[in-house]
Amino acid sequence: MKSEVIKPAALKIVADENIPLVRECFAELGNVVTLPGRSLSADDLADADVLVARSVTRVNKELVQNSSLKFVGTCTAGFDHVDLQALKAQGIEFSSAPGCNARSVVEYVLCALDILAERDGYCITGRTVGIVGKGQVGSRLYRALQALGVTVMANDPLLEPEAGVELVELDELLERCDVIALHTPLTTSGDYPTYHLMGEQQLLAMKHGAVLINAGRGAVVDNRALLNVLKVRDDLSVVLDVWEHEPDVDPELLELVDIATPHIAGYSLDGKITGTVMVYQALCRFLGLPARTSQQDLTPLPPLMKLDFTGTVDADQATSVAMRATYDIRRDDALMRRLLKMEPEARRLAFDFMRKNYSERREFSTLNIDASRSSQEVQQRLQALGFCLQDNGLSVG
Amino acid sequence: MKSEVIKPAALKIVADENIPLVRECFAELGNVVTLPGRSLSADDLADADVLVARSVTRVNKELVQNSSLKFVGTCTAGFDHVDLQALKAQGIEFSSAPGCNARSVVEYVLCALDILAERDGYCITGRTVGIVGKGQVGSRLYRALQALGVTVMANDPLLEPEAGVELVELDELLERCDVIALHTPLTTSGDYPTYHLMGEQQLLAMKHGAVLINAGRGAVVDNRALLNVLKVRDDLSVVLDVWEHEPDVDPELLELVDIATPHIAGYSLDGKITGTVMVYQALCRFLGLPARTSQQDLTPLPPLMKLDFTGTVDADQATSVAMRATYDIRRDDALMRRLLKMEPEARRLAFDFMRKNYSERREFSTLNIDASRSSQEVQQRLQALGFCLQDNGLSVG
Ligand SMILES: NC(=O)c1ccc[n+]([C@@H]2O[C@H](COP(=O)([O-])OP(=O)(O)OC[C@H]3O[C@@H](n4cnc5c(N)ncnc54)[C@H](O)[C@@H]3O)[C@@H](O)[C@H]2O)c1
Ligand SMILES: NC(=O)c1ccc[n+]([C@@H]2O[C@H](COP(=O)([O-])OP(=O)(O)OC[C@H]3O[C@@H](n4cnc5c(N)ncnc54)[C@H](O)[C@@H]3O)[C@@H](O)[C@H]2O)c1
Repeated sequence: MKSEVIKPAALKIVADENIPLVRECFAELGNVVTLPGRSLSADDLADADVLVARSVTRVNKELVQNSSLKFVGTCTAGFDHVDLQALKAQGIEFSSAPGCNARSVVEYVLCALDILAERDGYCITGRTVGIVGKGQVGSRLYRALQALGVTVMANDPLLEPEAGVELVELDELLERCDVIALHTPLTTSGDYPTYHLMGEQQLLAMKHGAVLINAGRGAVVDNRALLNVLKVRDDLSVVLDVWEHEPDVDPELLELVDIATPHIAGYSLDGKITGTVMVYQALCRFLGLPARTSQQDLTPLPPLMKLDFTGTVDADQATSVAMRATYDIRRDDALMRRLLKMEPEARRLAFDFMRKNYSERREFSTLNIDASRSSQEVQQRLQALGFCLQDNGLSVG
Repeated sequence: MKSEVIKPAALKIVADENIPLVRECFAELGNVVTLPGRSLSADDLADADVLVARSVTRVNKELVQNSSLKFVGTCTAGFDHVDLQALKAQGIEFSSAPGCNARSVVEYVLCALDILAERDGYCITGRTVGIVGKGQVGSRLYRALQALGVTVMANDPLLEPEAGVELVELDELLERCDVIALHTPLTTSGDYPTYHLMGEQQLLAMKHGAVLINAGRGAVVDNRALLNVLKVRDDLSVVLDVWEHEPDVDPELLELVDIATPHIAGYSLDGKITGTVMVYQALCRFLGLPARTSQQDLTPLPPLMKLDFTGTVDADQATSVAMRATYDIRRDDALMRRLLKMEPEARRLAFDFMRKNYSERREFSTLNIDASRSSQEVQQRLQALGFCLQDNGLSVG
């Protein structure tokens, strides 16, 4: 399919109605028809040129074989819901949005660490953090922590050695790290399956007072083993965004976990818009057209636009205030704990409900901060976290 | 003692070294000598004209009888530590700072309610709040809640009826209110003693799902009865800043309480400065001199100076973000919960340590907010809370 065959003005673009700003983003390329993604049928796509989907639509042979589709995009990082073979067989171009939600997960992890550090009276910059799975999320987290001055290492047996990155075996990571953050996919085969990667043995091997964070996939941690280990090791802190057997959350485990959320780490509004824009850009490339709409054009104003710090603020306080004003993870944790009082069936429904009706969380980059009166350290830390510093006189040492 | 007898330039002012800004405030009136308040002796005061104290100094006959003191001030709301008779006998003028910490307590209560409302999914403006004890703290809380649009009533048998204030019996208040806030002194005699005012019967009479807040005096609530009631009524929420038998906090009760803090509700830096300034002003009046130093002159810049909201913020979000950026009560709660892991003696020491080393908490009035792009409701709520709105075009309806 050559791009000149398609007349942009006549393009019919079918899009999931729940993709934020999809109409605004794609309108210049054709007629955008938005429909509920869950119930999308082959009939809906009969005369469509482009499908823009989310993970709720199963994009398989039945859906696409009788369509006129030339391009399918999913505005999500993952694409388990898409049968790539079926698209290839029909000569349909495909695109996804790898890493679009990575920044959101990174901020989730940083916010969780900030809360635990305050609670237990330490500063994250003095800790050693181990990242398991250094892909889209893991490598961004690695960089952010490094910029904050935290000692970081990673375990990722599928990666080649890289300058400036300390790669270690999982055993060594568990032995050395105060914080372990899991960011692998869930795999059951291959040389390095991640299913139950953190089993009883690994959990018991964690340092005294260590923090375990799972915002990857639930079953990477053996949840039953975790429950048993937490019963005997109350020195450990645990942050879980993902759960084995979701949406069936074990209430006993939920109660013992320090921060609990319903698989929303990647759900920032900005991440969703990034996903939309990445697919839009791929479609423009496919059509040989310039991408006229930028992420900035689409991004709505955040509720909170600006913070001004004075010279009396210290770095811990400034970073905590700025992070929490943008995203207070304890709000999600508090909502999640309402599950504790529910019956199993209601619990499952509530878990999904919370995900579907997630609030419009914004990323750190949407907050302008004037810290020009504050110390270099304050400025550097805020910059490392990704806030938008207004005074550009900063000379990073 | 007539004021012209004293030559201001020669005044010797002895002050507790731990009174914030006492030197800056009193310097223009004489020579300020700062000393540790706990160990202050009669010798220290032999040739002093003025004593400026805190509650750690027992101001009694022995301390003052051989001094040249003409004026004693305590920069605190309470003055249980001062023997007024002894001062009178020596012809020493006395002044205290009633209500100086009232605003701090009001903000503590508002912050606690904001956290609970978010956790349990309601908005405080839709609740009915009952205030027990409508004095310095209670009446300010009454006004703030009224300005927020909350239904408020008070119980205070020692007050005369007043226009615009709904005064009710305690029984009626317990029957009608979703939130009960205690702000009485601790009294064991008189017509209306407050000792164990909230006993088992009153606690059981609280509405389903009610919130009890005690930031008055610990023993106004029968703590043992509260523990027993909480074991059978998990619908109740409890916020305790004050505890029976402080600094001996019952760990079992601490665990069941929703927000727990170590008697710091009134500890804002601004409240402490207000206390200093009130005594300074009283001394100026006594000396017949104009008060040249104002609170504003003394008040240091807060760490966070300004917030800008946009039009996309809603009132709940704006008030939560602004309140928590100024004072996040969960920080104090988290510190307090460390007591749970301590032995009794360490627990007592830690309780006092936390009070003595309390962070420099600032009041809402120190935060400038630009909400000129936001809705009228946002502006009104922020104003009702006492934040400093920058845009004065607001026409309150
Ligand atoms: N909680 C959320 O909301 C959320 C949001 C985004 C992503 N995720 C999940 O987080 C995980 C990471 O996402 P991503 O976008 O960074 O994926 P990615 O594919 O970019 O990175 C995954 C990394 O894990 C590594 N890995 C694979 N097996 C490993 C093993 N046995 N040990 C150590 N490392 C191993 C891979 O080599 C790769 O570098 C995925 O499972 C994704 O589904 C969750
Ligand atoms: N937690 C803190 O950090 C903190 C800070 C400031 C004040 N306080 C305490 O809070 C309490 C109130 O402080 P305040 O400055 O408002 O005192 P206040 O004396 O101005 O007001 C107390 C009010 O309680 C009323 N009252 C007395 N007995 C009553 C009863 N049986 N029932 C109902 N009302 C009754 C009085 O009539 C008065 O109006 C005091 O005990 C004070 O010590 C605590």
